[in-house]
This record gives sequence, structure tokens and C-alpha cells, in this order.
Amino acid sequence: MTLKPDFAKYPNGLVPTIVVDDQTNQVLMMAYVNEESYARSLASKQTWFWSRSRQELWHKGATSGNTQDIVAVQIDCDEDTLLFRVNPAGPACHTGHTSCFYRSIELD
Amino acid sequence: MTLKPDFAKYPNGLVPTIVVDDQTNQVLMMAYVNEESYARSLASKQTWFWSRSRQELWHKGATSGNTQDIVAVQIDCDEDTLLFRVNPAGPACHTGHTSCFYRSIELD
Repeated sequence: MTLKPDFAKYPNGLVPTIVVDDQTNQVLMMAYVNEESYARSLASKQTWFWSRSRQELWHKGATSGNTQDIVAVQIDCDEDTLLFRVNPAGPACHTGHTSCFYRSIELD
Repeated sequence: MTLKPDFAKYPNGLVPTIVVDDQTNQVLMMAYVNEESYARSLASKQTWFWSRSRQELWHKGATSGNTQDIVAVQIDCDEDTLLFRVNPAGPACHTGHTSCFYRSIELD
């Protein structure tokens, strides 16, 4: 059987997907794939997600130019989370930061 | 206002949280925090999650000994995903692998 994410595990069929820079190992963002965007990601070797705010398929970088070429796809032990290793054409974050995780929460 | 995750964004109040090894940058796992496990994580500086399968608070490593000491907490641009940078006492995965993402999906 082909290894693939368990979309049925989520009521909305959206599988959380971590995006990591393949060169630096930095976590760039987290987004969601449904079956269609997952299939498009594998076929095109660029990241496609499901935009929850816009409720539509989202080819990352289609507007900004900051596409992400997929180098590898990894899946976790219980097959409900994905990890895309990518070479990004530009910043992942709409704020212009390399990573969406550009802020730290202060610890005591 | 203190920077904190937007728990209200999710119907079940569970915020996806990526766990990264602070030394190697490797993504170890992804799990969910609710307000209570988030508060316990910050207070104890060890990772606490909400176990969806057991429907209970989950102190990572309480049974296995593989606790994760929190070095830093990061939050993404729209404040609906967290990232814990940790020093792990042992493997993150219940299979014994360092990371839960130990399998790759074959690309054409």
C-alpha cells in the first residue's frame, strides 16, 4: 500500500503540514493540505495548500512569486502530519520574514 | 498585551505545536496544546500537550522518561501555530525514532 496521509482522520480532511527549508533545516511555516492540494504538490513538486481563510486551493507563491520547490515529503508515525522539505524562492511569510515563526514568547 | 496563541481560532481550542530539537534544528514531532497544557508548558519549562486519543493532559515523557526541556517558544504570524524549541531527554517518537517524521513518501 502506498504511504499517504490519513485525510479521514480530520473532520474537514485537512492535514497539518510543516514546511522546512531543506538547506538550513529552519521551520518556515505550517499550513494544511487536503487530498487535492496534496496531489497537486506531489505532481508539480511545488507546495499547494488549502487556504482556510479563502476556502480555496492555494499554490504558495502564485501571487508573491515565493514558490517552494519540494525536495522531500516526510510523514509522521501516525500518518496525520506531513513535512515538506523545500527550496524556497523567497520568504515564506507574508510579512516578508523568512519564516512565519519570527517572534518568541517571553519565558520567565 | 501579552503575545499568546489564539485558542479561540479552533473549535476545540487545540493549537498545533511543532517541536524542534534546539541543538540540531530537527523537527521531532507535532502535537496539540490547549490553554491548560500551554500554561503548564510555560510554567514547568517542559512540554505538555492535549492527547486527542486519550482526551487528557499529556506530560510528554511522564511515562517513557523522554521529557523535553523547553528552551524557547515561538509563534507564527497569525498566532495560530506554536513552535517549541527543546532539549529532549530521549527519542520523541513512541517507535524509538528520534523524530516522528522518520519515513519519506516516494516522489516520482
